[in-house]
Amino acid sequence: MTIRIIITGGTFDKHYDEIRGSLTFKDSHLPEILKFVRCTVPIEVELNQLIDSLDMHTSNRLRVLESCRRASEERIVITHGTDTMVETAAVLGEAGLAKTVILTGAMVPYIFNNSDAVFNLGCALTAVQLLPHGVYIAMNGRVFGWDRVHKNRELGVFEEKRG
Amino acid sequence: MTIRIIITGGTFDKHYDEIRGSLTFKDSHLPEILKFVRCTVPIEVELNQLIDSLDMHTSNRLRVLESCRRASEERIVITHGTDTMVETAAVLGEAGLAKTVILTGAMVPYIFNNSDAVFNLGCALTAVQLLPHGVYIAMNGRVFGWDRVHKNRELGVFEEKRG
Amino acid sequence: MTIRIIITGGTFDKHYDEIRGSLTFKDSHLPEILKFVRCTVPIEVELNQLIDSLDMHTSNRLRVLESCRRASEERIVITHGTDTMVETAAVLGEAGLAKTVILTGAMVPYIFNNSDAVFNLGCALTAVQLLPHGVYIAMNGRVFGWDRVHKNRELGVFEEKRG
Amino acid sequence: MTIRIIITGGTFDKHYDEIRGSLTFKDSHLPEILKFVRCTVPIEVELNQLIDSLDMHTSNRLRVLESCRRASEERIVITHGTDTMVETAAVLGEAGLAKTVILTGAMVPYIFNNSDAVFNLGCALTAVQLLPHGVYIAMNGRVFGWDRVHKNRELGVFEEKRG
Repeated sequence: MTIRIIITGGTFDKHYDEIRGSLTFKDSHLPEILKFVRCTVPIEVELNQLIDSLDMHTSNRLRVLESCRRASEERIVITHGTDTMVETAAVLGEAGLAKTVILTGAMVPYIFNNSDAVFNLGCALTAVQLLPHGVYIAMNGRVFGWDRVHKNRELGVFEEKRG
Repeated sequence: MTIRIIITGGTFDKHYDEIRGSLTFKDSHLPEILKFVRCTVPIEVELNQLIDSLDMHTSNRLRVLESCRRASEERIVITHGTDTMVETAAVLGEAGLAKTVILTGAMVPYIFNNSDAVFNLGCALTAVQLLPHGVYIAMNGRVFGWDRVHKNRELGVFEEKRG
Repeated sequence: MTIRIIITGGTFDKHYDEIRGSLTFKDSHLPEILKFVRCTVPIEVELNQLIDSLDMHTSNRLRVLESCRRASEERIVITHGTDTMVETAAVLGEAGLAKTVILTGAMVPYIFNNSDAVFNLGCALTAVQLLPHGVYIAMNGRVFGWDRVHKNRELGVFEEKRG
Repeated sequence: MTIRIIITGGTFDKHYDEIRGSLTFKDSHLPEILKFVRCTVPIEVELNQLIDSLDMHTSNRLRVLESCRRASEERIVITHGTDTMVETAAVLGEAGLAKTVILTGAMVPYIFNNSDAVFNLGCALTAVQLLPHGVYIAMNGRVFGWDRVHKNRELGVFEEKRG
């Protein structure tokens, strides 16, 4: 059972540009991470886009949806910026795909010593293998259905959406 | 739903003793890890023992079993050395506990830059929330039933047991 | 012989604000670094300011100069942003202090895996003990007199000033 | 002015063998380190040997001496295990080479998050450029003449030799 990982950018994959002194995008760190965590699950990595999730417009989300549809794999993990992860999850959730899709990301870029990226990837890769078809968000050690979650921007954590 | 993490030592928690120049145990890194990965699941950490899993004897495994039995939590993650993780899993599996128990560990200590510890913890914490009662091993991005797994010592990976 | 380290901010001490997703300042990482590098030289750390060196105005530089003057130590290391390090060095150099002053900084923040901060600190702390009175910049493994150096902004390295 | 770095092994370059679960040697991390610290000094790296300094016998030390003699560079840094660094320094010091030679090493391997290796390398590379001919040890942020230093094994630090 191969898992597809669709990369869209976000904090997870931020890179430090030392000439400009700012956080930008260059390449994805996914291939490097998958190697040192000793993951033996067959994985197909797809670089869909590398953008900040605040820059994600409808067309960007549709490109993610299109990739999910086209994928021959039934199990898909998407790395995504946290700011609009819930919005993209909704686009995918409403599409009613016959697949298991987990969105994850990071609050602190992978390149930092104290990043949550690798932990979140472990959560997402496990959840995608165990959950039935549907669209979910895996963050903060928890897994949420796409229509039951919101990001608490003050605390920087994902929480169950109240009724 | 609180998750109990039972610490037994293993490569996961190895510490570098710079005076002796060797890998030993001192404290567990779990509390520090749980903080920076931004885990919001309520967790109860229990320091059961801090030993190399090659030094695990029957009495040590029974101490782990006893902790699982006594725990008020129904969901338990155990950090354990990889060398005899399968043996401890068998002791727990045969006990038929009405709980979900996931054993995990690391091939490379947490204190190294390229450790698999944090990834494996993410896998285990997710699996323990999603799987029915039973005893499992979460390693290499996969989850195995306790009686269907062995460690391939040459490759340093966990695999499905054949036959 | 005690060495004074005057902290002014710069890339060296940048902190990642995970709520805003940007690099800012919070505390200095100097005390933590000095501990794990096992430095046994007596050191007095002084938090002078925590700013980006592009935000350094004349008043900021005079505050650094004032600290150098007031210091009872004869040997001083200053951590500083790289963009205007040469300008601050010139203010200090022209003041003709009877002290050895080394400015250093980092192109990549300390909190990143592949930062040059700790290396540069080692260079600066060594240079300050070995060089006669004067003002110097220690970057890229080299030590430059304050009036013989410029930053090559395209390459992100310090070079000998030609002419 | 090119600097030669002669690698002999020691804690600095220890590698973690995840199959055996122990610290051994594989390759040197020097080339990787020199790149990310953005060192622009021309450097010639020489892999002399990769051993624990407790395994250093007279023949091993003579091989280091021979490399120092043969080197066309006048400035040499040697990475070395800390346990017998003083002994090797004595062999080199008594040889009366017309060169500046700095020995350095690490108490914690480079591959650990909190290693002193990169700091010590910065100290050594700076000292070798600033000091007159002679043999020195750069550890703990200090530089010692080869015949005025001993390792305090209890504290794990280098100190001035008394008497």
